[in-house]
Amino acid sequence: MKIVALAGGVGGAKLVDGLVQSLSPQDLTIVVNTGDDFEHFGLTICPDLDTICYTLAGIANPETGWGRSEESWSTYQELKRLRAPDWFQLGDRDLATHLERTRRLIDGESLSQITAYFCQIWGVQHPVLPMSDDPVQTWLLTDEGELPFQEYFVYYHYQPIVRDIQFRGIEKAKPAPEVLGALNQADVILFCPSNPFVSIDPILGLDGVRKACLNHKVLAVSPIIGGKAIKGPAAKMFEELGITPSPVAVAQHYAGLLNGLVMDNLDAQLAAEVQQIGIRTLVTDTLMDNSLARYNLAQILLRAIESGEL
Amino acid sequence: MKIVALAGGVGGAKLVDGLVQSLSPQDLTIVVNTGDDFEHFGLTICPDLDTICYTLAGIANPETGWGRSEESWSTYQELKRLRAPDWFQLGDRDLATHLERTRRLIDGESLSQITAYFCQIWGVQHPVLPMSDDPVQTWLLTDEGELPFQEYFVYYHYQPIVRDIQFRGIEKAKPAPEVLGALNQADVILFCPSNPFVSIDPILGLDGVRKACLNHKVLAVSPIIGGKAIKGPAAKMFEELGITPSPVAVAQHYAGLLNGLVMDNLDAQLAAEVQQIGIRTLVTDTLMDNSLARYNLAQILLRAIESGEL
Repeated sequence: MKIVALAGGVGGAKLVDGLVQSLSPQDLTIVVNTGDDFEHFGLTICPDLDTICYTLAGIANPETGWGRSEESWSTYQELKRLRAPDWFQLGDRDLATHLERTRRLIDGESLSQITAYFCQIWGVQHPVLPMSDDPVQTWLLTDEGELPFQEYFVYYHYQPIVRDIQFRGIEKAKPAPEVLGALNQADVILFCPSNPFVSIDPILGLDGVRKACLNHKVLAVSPIIGGKAIKGPAAKMFEELGITPSPVAVAQHYAGLLNGLVMDNLDAQLAAEVQQIGIRTLVTDTLMDNSLARYNLAQILLRAIESGEL
Repeated sequence: MKIVALAGGVGGAKLVDGLVQSLSPQDLTIVVNTGDDFEHFGLTICPDLDTICYTLAGIANPETGWGRSEESWSTYQELKRLRAPDWFQLGDRDLATHLERTRRLIDGESLSQITAYFCQIWGVQHPVLPMSDDPVQTWLLTDEGELPFQEYFVYYHYQPIVRDIQFRGIEKAKPAPEVLGALNQADVILFCPSNPFVSIDPILGLDGVRKACLNHKVLAVSPIIGGKAIKGPAAKMFEELGITPSPVAVAQHYAGLLNGLVMDNLDAQLAAEVQQIGIRTLVTDTLMDNSLARYNLAQILLRAIESGEL
């Protein structure tokens, strides 16, 4: 069974970490949001790609979910002494990724090529594809003005109220070379428990991706549990757009694409409502607060697909 | 007495370190070569400026002469793991300088403004001016091809044989805003014991600098002692250009500009030959292998200027 997982940052990383323990590299491809990418100190930083790759390589910081384990902060401390912008924390080891990525981009390599190279060095065997080699920038139109994603997310701690979301450059951006091929060969396309608005929607907005989803079984794991997001602004965004955050809201957000939704035991009472939209449900523990829980969720999901329950 | 010192990297840094202990910030301005500057990993790196500023701030690595004291190498080790180019060593603290400089350049600040800002943070009170805010690139035409300075110097350990030296961009480059003003107000213009070909000549090549020198007392400290350079390729370059390296060769290199030369006791027997070109000499210990020696040389130099010996 071939699965293509669409993922953003921390929530997506947890589920794919469970999936790689159950599926061979031939059977799992991970397509990662790049709408969060930004330029900082002249370097190209790809937060979602790095979180996914570091997690799969076993070198992610388990406390934060982002950045490197066994990290040191000499450069960052020195940047603070220079009173440089310090809102985006740059660890010493993490910085090497941004430096070498930037150098290779300047040298003419594509983000796909660079990501494949890093994965080879780090021993990540499952293909990790940036959604596009072309720049796409997620902007939030908020009550405090227009903000690029990282400023909204990190600098403003996602406090401004979101009125609208734009993926600038998406009309001109093409899916990265292997993305459509992987989607077309997939048995299941899986939307990870990432933010629907700013992690999954940018991928779906790329030319050909939504169409590929229409021809395939599409499943999602709800990033909303008990009305809240485990991390980040997904629930807050639903509310600000006038929608009560819940697995039902997630199912409706993906309406027309989604065939099945994995939702948490905490939301069991909402399963019937999701089914009424014509979407199958699997109700289980989706919290993934440790490595075993990630593996367990992946196993439950795969068995439900094989059995036809999803 | 107002002095403007023209300086390159390590040799220049030693002498200006001695001078700042003897002259007030009003009486000493340091103009630094930027022909060595280069782009690496997308960052703008200014080796000579950093060596001078770190030295005056008391945060230079006393062992190497370049880079920071109490340095750590986490990013650099990680770059090696990524098999990134590692010929130019980037310490963690040093990296913060390159990152913030690059960020400010992208934001539209000039190299002069950024250098002044860094000096303020680091407590460097004497004005340190980059020679120009415009890019000038020193290239070496060698038997191994055309090489930008850092590749020749660091990557190739200055082993290729130099046939010619070019300062690309120098026709369009203007001296940085305060450079000509400082030169014109100077009582003495001092060429530090830096490489004449690649540290001092780029500064002299800027529009108006050579003319300012013609109207002033110009002194130099010989970077050649006993036929050798303390550090770097100065002696080797003299030889490759068909000239025996010596204080005489240094004096002849600066002929038409130079009024006096400070040369080492080791070369005392060559003083008469320098004087025959019409250049005064001061023979003393010029090695500066510790902080006291730097101070002593500065004191001897200043007394010789005051007494009219130079």
